[in-house]
Amino acid sequence: MNTLEPTERTRLRRKPGRGSFDVTVVNAILDEALVCHVGFTTGAAPIVIPTTHVRVEDRLYVHGSAASHMLGTLAKGIEVCVAVTLLDALVFARTAFHHSVNYRSVVLFGTARLVDEPAEKRRALAALIDKLAPDRSAACRAPDDKELAATKVIAVPIEEASAKIRTGPPLADEGDDAALPYWAGILPVRLARGTAQTAPDCTAPPPPDLG
Amino acid sequence: MNTLEPTERTRLRRKPGRGSFDVTVVNAILDEALVCHVGFTTGAAPIVIPTTHVRVEDRLYVHGSAASHMLGTLAKGIEVCVAVTLLDALVFARTAFHHSVNYRSVVLFGTARLVDEPAEKRRALAALIDKLAPDRSAACRAPDDKELAATKVIAVPIEEASAKIRTGPPLADEGDDAALPYWAGILPVRLARGTAQTAPDCTAPPPPDLG
Repeated sequence: MNTLEPTERTRLRRKPGRGSFDVTVVNAILDEALVCHVGFTTGAAPIVIPTTHVRVEDRLYVHGSAASHMLGTLAKGIEVCVAVTLLDALVFARTAFHHSVNYRSVVLFGTARLVDEPAEKRRALAALIDKLAPDRSAACRAPDDKELAATKVIAVPIEEASAKIRTGPPLADEGDDAALPYWAGILPVRLARGTAQTAPDCTAPPPPDLG
Repeated sequence: MNTLEPTERTRLRRKPGRGSFDVTVVNAILDEALVCHVGFTTGAAPIVIPTTHVRVEDRLYVHGSAASHMLGTLAKGIEVCVAVTLLDALVFARTAFHHSVNYRSVVLFGTARLVDEPAEKRRALAALIDKLAPDRSAACRAPDDKELAATKVIAVPIEEASAKIRTGPPLADEGDDAALPYWAGILPVRLARGTAQTAPDCTAPPPPDLG
């Protein structure tokens, strides 16, 4: 098993049994999540911004307008914390105290790096598109030089990270609580894809894997 | 319309047309989202942690174990940034550049406050449970004094916040791009609820609204 080295920041202080440093586990969560939350500071106060992301090998990429405040700040090479969360179920117990949610999350710490090498930048942008639908980057026009210049891409190495996962039924209520007449169990949730809606100005049919 | 006052931190520098300071809009996003991402700093580096939340009137509440590192840090009354994001659609254009996602997000800045008044604490915890299913806090045993003491609740005032929303089809590709043979449109996504699964040690049936 390929594992990340725990650090003071990624070591789980509570419920370490829910944690994982397994690269396969961390990568699977990063790959399934369509949105991440990027935390950084400018001065004393924290800022958290949602954005799309993609993993390529051992790097996480985010992108945005070259005019973006966040991207401009990250491009300075500052410390960031990126969190992604997949919600899997709502967890109901007989006691309010044992209610919970099932989830898979990753928290990644690292130093942001501006991607200015054109080949890496193009590859990251193509991977971002391919995450929306398989091979989509080959089914649209690639960025031209002007569009590439108008886009900033930031990389964060996936080195200091941990996953945290809760699965299964609620913790068993004990003693008198176990006899309470309330329902206990889980309600699974998942991100469901709907039916493709073609743009008003488009006459092409949706690709089979999106239709 | 009840609106929040824009500040230097919440004013949208780019695409201000996507922003909203309407309290009704901000609250609806906070209420629909089941998970938030809380950003804070301890020293120089940012930390972002996912957790559940609930809004009660003009306050956002998060909770956790009294032994939680995050809750202990927030309880000191530090500055936090809380972001919630609802993903609504994947947006496909003829050009890679115009690919996007439809979303509704809120970014909230504020000073965390430890909730130590028992009535407010109980009310916030009940609201957190009721968010999982309507009136669920009345269909389970409320926290006893020991459980209440083992739980920290943190409030953040919803005063300095803004929503950001993208809806609709992709931006129209222009010129030669408009004639490209690629499909353009959106693929809606939503958080779908599955079928309730009763805990192994429970004989009660799921409530009708969860079954």
